[in-house]
Amino acid sequence: MKEVLIVGSVAYDGLKTPYGSAVRALGGAATYSSLAASLFAPVRMVGVVGDDFKESDIQMLRKHKVNTDLVTREKGKTFYWNGYYENDMSQAHTVEIDLGVFETFKPDIKGAARNTPFVFLAAIHPDLQMMVLNQMNKPKYVVLDTRDLWINITKPPLLKVLKKTDLAVVNDQEIRLLTGEMHLLKGARALQKLGPKTVIVKKGEHGAMMFGQGWTFLSPAVPLDYVVDPTGAGDTFAGAFIGYLAKQPKITAEVLKQAVIAGNLVASFTVQGFGTKSIAALTKEKLKKRSAEYYKFASIPQIKL
Amino acid sequence: MKEVLIVGSVAYDGLKTPYGSAVRALGGAATYSSLAASLFAPVRMVGVVGDDFKESDIQMLRKHKVNTDLVTREKGKTFYWNGYYENDMSQAHTVEIDLGVFETFKPDIKGAARNTPFVFLAAIHPDLQMMVLNQMNKPKYVVLDTRDLWINITKPPLLKVLKKTDLAVVNDQEIRLLTGEMHLLKGARALQKLGPKTVIVKKGEHGAMMFGQGWTFLSPAVPLDYVVDPTGAGDTFAGAFIGYLAKQPKITAEVLKQAVIAGNLVASFTVQGFGTKSIAALTKEKLKKRSAEYYKFASIPQIKL
Repeated sequence: MKEVLIVGSVAYDGLKTPYGSAVRALGGAATYSSLAASLFAPVRMVGVVGDDFKESDIQMLRKHKVNTDLVTREKGKTFYWNGYYENDMSQAHTVEIDLGVFETFKPDIKGAARNTPFVFLAAIHPDLQMMVLNQMNKPKYVVLDTRDLWINITKPPLLKVLKKTDLAVVNDQEIRLLTGEMHLLKGARALQKLGPKTVIVKKGEHGAMMFGQGWTFLSPAVPLDYVVDPTGAGDTFAGAFIGYLAKQPKITAEVLKQAVIAGNLVASFTVQGFGTKSIAALTKEKLKKRSAEYYKFASIPQIKL
Repeated sequence: MKEVLIVGSVAYDGLKTPYGSAVRALGGAATYSSLAASLFAPVRMVGVVGDDFKESDIQMLRKHKVNTDLVTREKGKTFYWNGYYENDMSQAHTVEIDLGVFETFKPDIKGAARNTPFVFLAAIHPDLQMMVLNQMNKPKYVVLDTRDLWINITKPPLLKVLKKTDLAVVNDQEIRLLTGEMHLLKGARALQKLGPKTVIVKKGEHGAMMFGQGWTFLSPAVPLDYVVDPTGAGDTFAGAFIGYLAKQPKITAEVLKQAVIAGNLVASFTVQGFGTKSIAALTKEKLKKRSAEYYKFASIPQIKL
C-alpha cells in the first residue's frame, strides 16, 4: 500500500466556540491531516513538538498507524494557538499564538521516507514546503495547502513551490489573493497556469469545488445537525483526500472526484468535536453510515427534458 | 397536459449591475416564473399592467404559450422598479419603486382557471395570496414564495397561507425570520410544521436545498462563466420547478428532486441576460446542452470505503 508523507504544524489549541471550549486540545494541520489520511493509507508525519508534548498523544497517533519517527522533540514549548469563533463560526479569531519550537522547525526527511510517493504540504512557510520537496525523491503526487498570510508576505517562494505541485487546495479569498481574479472559475484557471493541474476550492458549508483539465466538479458538504468546532476541517479534508488517492491503483479524474467526497465525509466528523477528538474516534463503520446518508442527499437524479 | 396558474407582479425594471444596465426591461415575478414554467407546461398568468404596457410584451408571453387572459390592464402605470447591484451581486438595492396599478391589484380568478391544478403564489402580500387560494377549486399542488418584507409586516396572514401550501421557497434569511431558528436544518423542520410538507432553501450561487419528509436533497447551482444580472433568478427557479412538476404523471420525492434541478438549470440562463431577455430566448436545445454539462459537474461518483 502506498504511503503518504505529511508535513505541517503539530499544536495544542485553546478553543472557544458558541458551543463550548477546550484547553490545550491536540491540534495542528499535520495532526488533523495525518489522522484523516490514516483512515485510508499509512502515514508518515513530519513535524516538531516541545518537551511539553504528551506521550499519550504520540501513542494515540501511532495507534492510528501514523509513523511519528520524523516528528522531532525539541527543548521548548509545542506550538500553541488560542482562538475563538463567533456565532456563524466562519472565521477563527486569534487571541494568542506561541510558535514555540515550531519557530526554528527545519523539516529533515531521512532515509526511506524520501521515497514516499504521496506528499501533503500543509499551510506552512513556502520555504519549508520547498525544503521538503527538495529532499523528496520524485514524489508521485504533491498536494499543497497555503493561507492568506503566506500569499501576502511570501508570494515569490510560494509561486516556486506551486510550480512543483500537482494539486492546490485553497479557499475563495486565497484564490483571489493568489491570482487577482475575482471570479472563481477564472481564478481557478489562472491558478492552474501557476503549476497545479488540479485546483480544489474549499467552500466551507457549501462543499468543495474541483477544477481539473477541462472539467469541473462539485461535492456538496455533508449537511450536519450540529457543528461545535470548525478548527481543522480544511486540514482533515486535505488529509482524507490524499489518503484516499494513495489507496487507489491509479489517479484519474474519477478517482480525484471520489477523493473530494472522502475529504468532505471525513471533515464532517472533525467539526462535530473539539480539536482532533472526534476525528481520532472515527471508525470505518461510522464513515460508511454517513456515506450512505450523503449519497441520498447529494445524488442528483436524471431529469426529463 | 396539466396547467400552472401563476400570480405575482408584472413590472418594468430599471437595472444596473457591474456588467451593464437596462431601461424599462420587462420583469416582475409573474413574468419570470411564467416564462420559466412555460418551458414545461401551459401557464395561466394572473396579474395587472398599466396602460403603458407594451402590446409586444403581451405578444411575446402568448408566443410562449402563457395565457394572459387574467392579466388585466388598468388605467395608470405598470409596476416600476429601479435598482442596482454592487460588485458581488448578492443583494438588490432599490433606488425607486412605483407600484402603479399594482397598488390596487385584486386577483380575480375567473371560470375554468379556478380548476388549474398547479398554483404558484409569487412573493406578493399574503392577503392577495390567500385571495387566490380562496378562489381556487382544490388545487393539487401549491407553491409559495415570500420575502422578508411580508414576514416582517404581515406575518399572521402569511402563516395562514402557509398552512394551505404544499411547498415553500425561501432563502437563508427568510427561514430565520419565519422560524426564529438560526440553524438551517432546524429552521426547515420548523417551517415544515407551519404547513408546507416540503421546503426549498435557495442558496444563490451555492444552489438549492430541499427538505422533504425525512429526506434532504441538494442540487448545486450551475457554475457559470459569467453572470450579468441576478434579477429574477429566484422567480425563474420557482417557475421552472412548478412547470416541471406539472408535466410529470405523479409527484414523488424523486420528481421533486428533478424539479429542483430543472429550476437551477433554467435559472442559470436568466442571470446571463438583463431582465427576461435571456429566459425568453431559451430553447429546449440550449437547456439540454447545459443539462449535459451540469450532470458532468454535479454527479457524484461512488467512493470505495
